[in-house]
Amino acid sequence: MEIIRSNFKSNLHKVYQAIEEADFFAIDGEFSGISDGPSVTALTSGFDTPEERYQKLKKHSMDFLLFQFGLCAFKYDHTDSKYITKSFNFYVFPKPFSRSSPDVKFVCQSSSIDFLASQGFDFNKVFCSGIPYLNQEEERHLREQFDEKRSQANGAGALAKCPVTIPEDQRKFIDQVIEKIENFLQNKEKKSLDLEPCTGFQRKLIYQTLSWKFPKGIHVETLETEKKERHIVISKVDEEERKRREQEKYAKEQEELNDAVGFSRVIHAIANSRKLVVGHNMLLDVMHTIHQFYCPLPADLNEFKEMTICVFPRLLDTKLMASTQPFKDIINNTSLAELEKRLKETPFDPPKVESAEGFPSYDTASEQLHEAGYDAYITGLCFISMANYLGSLLGPPKVCVSARSKLIEPFFNKLFLMRVMDIPYLNLEGPDLQPKRDHVLHVTFPKEWKTSDLYQLFSAFGNIQISWIDDTSAFVSLSQPEQVQIAVNTSKYAESYRIQTYAEYVGKKQEDNKQVKRKWTEDSWKEVDRKQPKVSSPCSHTNSKNIPALLVTAHVCFTVRTCLPHLLLPMCVSHFTATGMTGKRNLSPDPEEAGSEDKELEEISDSELEQIDSCADPFPEGRRKVKKLKRMKKELSLAGTVADSPAMLFEVPDTW
Amino acid sequence: MEIIRSNFKSNLHKVYQAIEEADFFAIDGEFSGISDGPSVTALTSGFDTPEERYQKLKKHSMDFLLFQFGLCAFKYDHTDSKYITKSFNFYVFPKPFSRSSPDVKFVCQSSSIDFLASQGFDFNKVFCSGIPYLNQEEERHLREQFDEKRSQANGAGALAKCPVTIPEDQRKFIDQVIEKIENFLQNKEKKSLDLEPCTGFQRKLIYQTLSWKFPKGIHVETLETEKKERHIVISKVDEEERKRREQEKYAKEQEELNDAVGFSRVIHAIANSRKLVVGHNMLLDVMHTIHQFYCPLPADLNEFKEMTICVFPRLLDTKLMASTQPFKDIINNTSLAELEKRLKETPFDPPKVESAEGFPSYDTASEQLHEAGYDAYITGLCFISMANYLGSLLGPPKVCVSARSKLIEPFFNKLFLMRVMDIPYLNLEGPDLQPKRDHVLHVTFPKEWKTSDLYQLFSAFGNIQISWIDDTSAFVSLSQPEQVQIAVNTSKYAESYRIQTYAEYVGKKQEDNKQVKRKWTEDSWKEVDRKQPKVSSPCSHTNSKNIPALLVTAHVCFTVRTCLPHLLLPMCVSHFTATGMTGKRNLSPDPEEAGSEDKELEEISDSELEQIDSCADPFPEGRRKVKKLKRMKKELSLAGTVADSPAMLFEVPDTW
Repeated sequence: MEIIRSNFKSNLHKVYQAIEEADFFAIDGEFSGISDGPSVTALTSGFDTPEERYQKLKKHSMDFLLFQFGLCAFKYDHTDSKYITKSFNFYVFPKPFSRSSPDVKFVCQSSSIDFLASQGFDFNKVFCSGIPYLNQEEERHLREQFDEKRSQANGAGALAKCPVTIPEDQRKFIDQVIEKIENFLQNKEKKSLDLEPCTGFQRKLIYQTLSWKFPKGIHVETLETEKKERHIVISKVDEEERKRREQEKYAKEQEELNDAVGFSRVIHAIANSRKLVVGHNMLLDVMHTIHQFYCPLPADLNEFKEMTICVFPRLLDTKLMASTQPFKDIINNTSLAELEKRLKETPFDPPKVESAEGFPSYDTASEQLHEAGYDAYITGLCFISMANYLGSLLGPPKVCVSARSKLIEPFFNKLFLMRVMDIPYLNLEGPDLQPKRDHVLHVTFPKEWKTSDLYQLFSAFGNIQISWIDDTSAFVSLSQPEQVQIAVNTSKYAESYRIQTYAEYVGKKQEDNKQVKRKWTEDSWKEVDRKQPKVSSPCSHTNSKNIPALLVTAHVCFTVRTCLPHLLLPMCVSHFTATGMTGKRNLSPDPEEAGSEDKELEEISDSELEQIDSCADPFPEGRRKVKKLKRMKKELSLAGTVADSPAMLFEVPDTW
Repeated sequence: MEIIRSNFKSNLHKVYQAIEEADFFAIDGEFSGISDGPSVTALTSGFDTPEERYQKLKKHSMDFLLFQFGLCAFKYDHTDSKYITKSFNFYVFPKPFSRSSPDVKFVCQSSSIDFLASQGFDFNKVFCSGIPYLNQEEERHLREQFDEKRSQANGAGALAKCPVTIPEDQRKFIDQVIEKIENFLQNKEKKSLDLEPCTGFQRKLIYQTLSWKFPKGIHVETLETEKKERHIVISKVDEEERKRREQEKYAKEQEELNDAVGFSRVIHAIANSRKLVVGHNMLLDVMHTIHQFYCPLPADLNEFKEMTICVFPRLLDTKLMASTQPFKDIINNTSLAELEKRLKETPFDPPKVESAEGFPSYDTASEQLHEAGYDAYITGLCFISMANYLGSLLGPPKVCVSARSKLIEPFFNKLFLMRVMDIPYLNLEGPDLQPKRDHVLHVTFPKEWKTSDLYQLFSAFGNIQISWIDDTSAFVSLSQPEQVQIAVNTSKYAESYRIQTYAEYVGKKQEDNKQVKRKWTEDSWKEVDRKQPKVSSPCSHTNSKNIPALLVTAHVCFTVRTCLPHLLLPMCVSHFTATGMTGKRNLSPDPEEAGSEDKELEEISDSELEQIDSCADPFPEGRRKVKKLKRMKKELSLAGTVADSPAMLFEVPDTW
């Protein structure tokens, strides 16, 4: 169902009802751009820490506008064993509410706009008919404005708050107004009196004067003429009529205020439901949603995590799910469109889904990708298929796994991290994974160098993986940590490039940050050169023909690989150390909320799985299935619960 | 005529022809926003110097997109004594040309977008069908890319420029490719050979190897598969065929390049015509046009002036024209829509205008304001009416004043300065006017203060005019310079606010700027606090009730004015000193270009006007008319030629 400014209010109850009934939601956003930075590549370095990635996205992506929001509510119908969906596609635009309301500026990225245009996106619906919204601060401010206006109109308030002495040059004007009103009150035939248009300051003076001069018997209000000039209208009223008018005005103002809060009310309703919200690669969606409809994002990642959990207590990212065991082995491409197709085939079962009455149904055969409502819909389908697949691994198999099942809890509040090589997700409920990066080098080189130059430099090391940082530096991960020191040692005499270990790089960066902080404290407005290692001049214009292959004599074996760089995934398994874990794995779901019919079957503990594994299931197939589930739990629980395990094995998903 | 991406190429010759034939053009632009700054008010302080205004617009407005460009070409038809118009409305959008082309980010301002939406603007036409463009640097870069690609394809170039040593791990791959090609060459039936898709680096190696291994007899090219994978195709060709294919490819590339330069070609054609370009309040249009289609704006105003004169040697701003004598006295509202209406009435004559065959005609009765093509059209009409009115003042009157007439030369290259109180225009051909601001005060106060608080503070001074700078400072101009010192003296003991003269303010600012520059030189990346006068703490939360009226005992007279602040125009006449003038008033029009039929009548010198004034015209009416023309010349020539006059009277236009 398409929702724009004109049909928003009349359909809001349908949205609320869908949220009220739903078992879970899927959401998706379309933005006016992805990356405002120098280039997307630089923004998503393969060895970003979660903190770095958050800072980059916050800095370079939040100026874009989330202008289409897809919400698909899924409700399970136990009678017919199918899901009933209600899908909404909202167009959103920060139309200024009044002259004094915020005039939002947002950035558009040509490539993103062009991409959406090629998908048939209707920009007129956004810009001409988008639903307005306010964040919490703006809403508070507007409420205060209304309150102030009301207390000013009440007179007493104006007096109490900031009465203005009537300046000499206004006295005559005010005296004339009083005279007019006195004449008007004596004239029994006239019911109302229009004063001349005047300045805001003069209106303030009039309101103030009238409130003590004529505390009863008249109603004062400001109206706008056709020429947009504001003028005061005085009417004779008894006390009852005056109160009725006040109340009428108050109700009208409340409605205006609600209209201004607009689409944010939908987000508030989703948040207040505390229900599971599913998204595909949803980090940016979540960041934008909070930034646009709640408040500007906090400076610190941990604060962002706390804030997110407050707004959305249960999030699930289908891209992370599909990239994790047991799905990883059977799903090659985790892009939404490909995932949706894959999940229609064995061993998966496409779920039974029907759109609710009065809601248009989507046809997944004719793709409508990148319409947020459709994307939200198929994200929900993907979630159901994968959840049900987990159920099929149980003994006995469970056909339908609900949104409240313990089986999916390990995926809660872990958001997929795009293109990070060795940290699959941002953990909203505790500290993030800290992979050992002892096979990673930090390389600095002249800005003329290209990827091929780096491949050539490291040609003796077999498979390497390159992760650009900026024009003159990159991370290079080697297949064996032992090669790292060889590379560093041999590079010591190089003039055009420099190599240091990842640990050295991080150490220096932290040192630099400390210095920057110190300098900031010392002389407040000083910004310090980041001390990026500069390449010495003699070879700064070196082109590829001068780059010697590094360490061609080193005795390491390598294989010929004729594929694109992004397919050269690390061959090794990375090691993680989880330090200082304090967060718990999952927010406990409210016991009252959990569907009782699911409880019995799904509250399976590790020991129960163990039991099934070792004895309950007589068939090897069943045993394998349970192993899959255990592997999944192990893989994901790492950052949350296993504070004591010093190092855990984690396999990097194959598909990014 | 509406021009979008799909019909641009097929109509470009019509655009060129219209430019070729025209006597003059009118232009107009629509933008995605006006001011990216804190607020438009702060951006257009009434006492900005032209330099400050330029810097503000450059900093806060150039990130917006000019996305609709109106061009209306006017050609005078001597037979029928009427103008023939060709109006074009171009939709413009920086669609990325290829993966490696610039991915432009631009800002949108909600209020501007909302305003355009309310006028029925079609955003889909911009974003889905906008004509692409490149600035000169981007065009150069793209040409270089093409040249490099070609020389790489030619083989010789690749070898000469940067031959790559084949890395060990690629040798086997390259050997296999060579073997395949050798087999292919021996197979007489096969005409072409498709190699497997491979990386860019591998393709580079292949091109390089083949260029020396098979310098003749084969043609090598890279094609993209349906899956967007790039692969090399080898075909057998004789030398002639090879050359033909090369040329074909070259021609195709040139066309692609022209397509990418896109709309910039229209601007180049306008610029190359060296003809008069008319606009209404056109400073932002000119800045955006240069910024978007030529190059980023220079840091310095004088460089901007030089650049503008290079691109558009003759500009005329109808808003400035309408705000200057003899029009000022008879035109109240200089907004485009109002001006157009006013110029249909006496003493003006609406010009005879007809749209050319094949061009849809605009109907000024049903307004289509804010469609750039229409706005350009009526801007041209306004120019013609006003120019003809000047002709009517001559003795004998001249019915039609051409775009090459000396009568309008005084208006050339002076762009209207929006909301500057005492400098009506930016002078592109020399130094700007420097009004004495000896009746102006600079006031600093707590951020809670509002306009009414300032009025109250200065209530004893009669009419004042307030010009906000930021939250805590404003310029206040008094009606009499003698009041300035009284205000400064009396404010010395004030705690919550500070007052200094304009001269003191400018002096301190220049001192601060020097210090900033010195500091920048000393430690390069340091940014210095601007030392904005801070209000001392005790009264920082003062609200209006604590603000005493300043100098209520001062013996100055004042009048009660019950109108809005923006109508409180200074009562006094400002004094200008024109210093260091070196520029000449007008760029001499090319003698060959000037229509000979106009020359005789219109090359009127000041002494000729004098003659007409004193004797040639027997009627007082004629004498008054000539006085009007002289007054106009005097008023405008100030900044250009009258270097010797120490101070000149200048009346501020009434309508801003």
